[in-house]
Amino acid sequence: MRIYDIIEKKRNNKKLSKEEISFFVNGYVNKEIPDYQMAALLMAIYFNGMDDNELAYLTNEMANSGDSVDLTRIKGITVDKHSTGGVGDKTTLVICPIIASLGCNVAKMSGRGLGHTGGTIDKLESIPGFKVELDEDDFFKQVNDINIAIISQTGNITPADKKMYALRDTTATVESIPLIASSIMSKKIAAGAKCILLDVKTGSGAFMKTISDSKLLASKMVNIGNKLGRNTMAIITNMDVPLGNNIGNSLEVIEAIDTLKGKGPKDFRELCIELATNMLVLASNDNYSICKKKVIDALDSGKALDKFRQLIKAQGGNVDIINDYSLFGKTQYSFEVRAKESGYIKSMNTANIGKVSGMVGAGRATKEDSICYQAGIIVNKKTGDHVKTGDLLATIYTNKKEVIDEATTLYLDSIKLSKVKVKPKKLILGKIK
Amino acid sequence: MRIYDIIEKKRNNKKLSKEEISFFVNGYVNKEIPDYQMAALLMAIYFNGMDDNELAYLTNEMANSGDSVDLTRIKGITVDKHSTGGVGDKTTLVICPIIASLGCNVAKMSGRGLGHTGGTIDKLESIPGFKVELDEDDFFKQVNDINIAIISQTGNITPADKKMYALRDTTATVESIPLIASSIMSKKIAAGAKCILLDVKTGSGAFMKTISDSKLLASKMVNIGNKLGRNTMAIITNMDVPLGNNIGNSLEVIEAIDTLKGKGPKDFRELCIELATNMLVLASNDNYSICKKKVIDALDSGKALDKFRQLIKAQGGNVDIINDYSLFGKTQYSFEVRAKESGYIKSMNTANIGKVSGMVGAGRATKEDSICYQAGIIVNKKTGDHVKTGDLLATIYTNKKEVIDEATTLYLDSIKLSKVKVKPKKLILGKIK
Repeated sequence: MRIYDIIEKKRNNKKLSKEEISFFVNGYVNKEIPDYQMAALLMAIYFNGMDDNELAYLTNEMANSGDSVDLTRIKGITVDKHSTGGVGDKTTLVICPIIASLGCNVAKMSGRGLGHTGGTIDKLESIPGFKVELDEDDFFKQVNDINIAIISQTGNITPADKKMYALRDTTATVESIPLIASSIMSKKIAAGAKCILLDVKTGSGAFMKTISDSKLLASKMVNIGNKLGRNTMAIITNMDVPLGNNIGNSLEVIEAIDTLKGKGPKDFRELCIELATNMLVLASNDNYSICKKKVIDALDSGKALDKFRQLIKAQGGNVDIINDYSLFGKTQYSFEVRAKESGYIKSMNTANIGKVSGMVGAGRATKEDSICYQAGIIVNKKTGDHVKTGDLLATIYTNKKEVIDEATTLYLDSIKLSKVKVKPKKLILGKIK
Repeated sequence: MRIYDIIEKKRNNKKLSKEEISFFVNGYVNKEIPDYQMAALLMAIYFNGMDDNELAYLTNEMANSGDSVDLTRIKGITVDKHSTGGVGDKTTLVICPIIASLGCNVAKMSGRGLGHTGGTIDKLESIPGFKVELDEDDFFKQVNDINIAIISQTGNITPADKKMYALRDTTATVESIPLIASSIMSKKIAAGAKCILLDVKTGSGAFMKTISDSKLLASKMVNIGNKLGRNTMAIITNMDVPLGNNIGNSLEVIEAIDTLKGKGPKDFRELCIELATNMLVLASNDNYSICKKKVIDALDSGKALDKFRQLIKAQGGNVDIINDYSLFGKTQYSFEVRAKESGYIKSMNTANIGKVSGMVGAGRATKEDSICYQAGIIVNKKTGDHVKTGDLLATIYTNKKEVIDEATTLYLDSIKLSKVKVKPKKLILGKIK
């Protein structure tokens, strides 16, 4: 087998076999195939795509290219979730406790990531004392004891994906839906859970800007998951507006706790219920309405909050933060962003609001950057709301006094007003299974 | 300017500017742009192509990436020709003497190349004593004295094309008509002639298999040449059958001399007249029919043969070969290929006949291979001819006894017979200017 023939075949829009895909993934990881041939192949895939079989083979090879997590030591069903990323997305912090409180096992490895805030791991680390590193035995024991553990990704997970992604990032081949689907799914497959729920965000604050691209990505990922023996489902959700009100690390944990207490913002609570319900559908034999009742009960009875308390305690965090948010500490400065005119909020450039969050210290641009856990934004008015001149639009929290002017300007520029009433988009836009 | 943005732009099917094309060609030659980014860009060009302006910019940058030949020291008009390559194609050996005998200047640098036979330079070297290396002053002096010199390419001509071609060769991006056009034309532009005649071969023995691809390639090259200030024209010619009867190095020189003597095969003479006529049209103010008369007269009067004799003499070759072909020497073995059944020759797989030629020693597969000047094939029957069982189809000349069986089988397999009469394709299929 020769890589030249594989490039030519894909260039000619032919389907690659399992063996050919295995050959190029392993050859690339083993440095037998040079970057320039892989770059040509990736560009050919960009143009000609891959069908569901090819994507399942590719994903499986990438998932098996390094360490993978063997969850067979966990008794009972294992579940995982993935969000394609959005501004204010702290759903993991609510859904995982709900679903664990209902007896599913959440043995979750999570990344830190780059972006407008940290990843789930950074958010959990904003809880004083919370340890995100557990050794393997403790990790499995904790899941078997309390149904939930969330730790930082360790080991050499999906090196093929890492290497291919780095190459795509320099060769303009990131924006390929099949390649995005297999990249995400390879990590989920390697993470080992039997049930995978995907939250595919769409809109100005998401990687996928259009509903059609989001649906295509979702269906590709669901097909890959199902072909590789995982119960997989995707929910398409709106990211034209920040999710909930809080953006930042400890700010998002606080909003998650509020939600577990039954006091969270309506949109965020609605999304958590929808995602948790579908996760339970995947993991059980119950129908949607039975699962939804169980999820709402877990929230309203305080069972889910208790589970979050158990998680914090098990991983060394200070459980007192649940009742005393001041224990998270606070930033040196807070600044109010106020409306310069009146009208209905017609749109929010959510990617730019994410940029404000990053700018004020909540996220990192490179791996080496440090994060300010307390930095971020509390959004006070969202799409559809009416504002009068001088009304509070948002409060920005930061230790960086020097960025405030730029951050305020960017925030204000992100908000478009209208004289006429605006109906906000629905939050849940579709389901693919 | 960033190469990433250029890749992305071409990937999105946008036109690249002169500055962007200059940036990537020079960046690649200077090793500022790595192979993997160039490979991705070439694959994007493969899919999205380049328009005539982009191709003119690209060709010009490649032509200027290294040494170029300054023909202003030549008095009068300079002409050059290029053939996209075919089996039995020895037209340069006839056309250049014709055109030089009519007062045009042929200051030609030619390559050796890989393939079923050597290049023009190898063919000329099969003439005992012929020197293909001249220093610059002697080269120009010879052209000013006798209107013709043909030497081996020296110096660092179009390094950008060399480097890009080597990369294309390993990344399945050779088969791109815009990239083929700019690669060929960059060398012609760097070679300096004012008038360029292109012979674009089409059919089973050519790189372009279909007439539509050939026309597209021809028009791209003609547009590039004209945009870059050269009088350029292309003739599309049939390569579904070997050209003339002789394939090999000294065998082709012999057939060229026969043709200059007025005794060459009809198809080969016809093509030489057509190409030389159009070259004269490009180089003069005369119309086609006047030019054709002049060309035929140059052949029939012996003027063109005299010019060839002058060329051989000027470059140290033994002119006696013109009257005594035995001076070329001969191979150790010759084998006859005879028909196993009777019928009309319906088709000849000309690429495979080329393979036979390479196999028996007439060509080189790698730069390091040596060539047997006397090896090759004399074809006795061609498409449209009637053959009876036992008739001589071809004679194969070689020093390699061990390849004869395979060569004979491949030659026989290349010939398809028909019970009904077959009309051979026309030789001249189109003209693009």
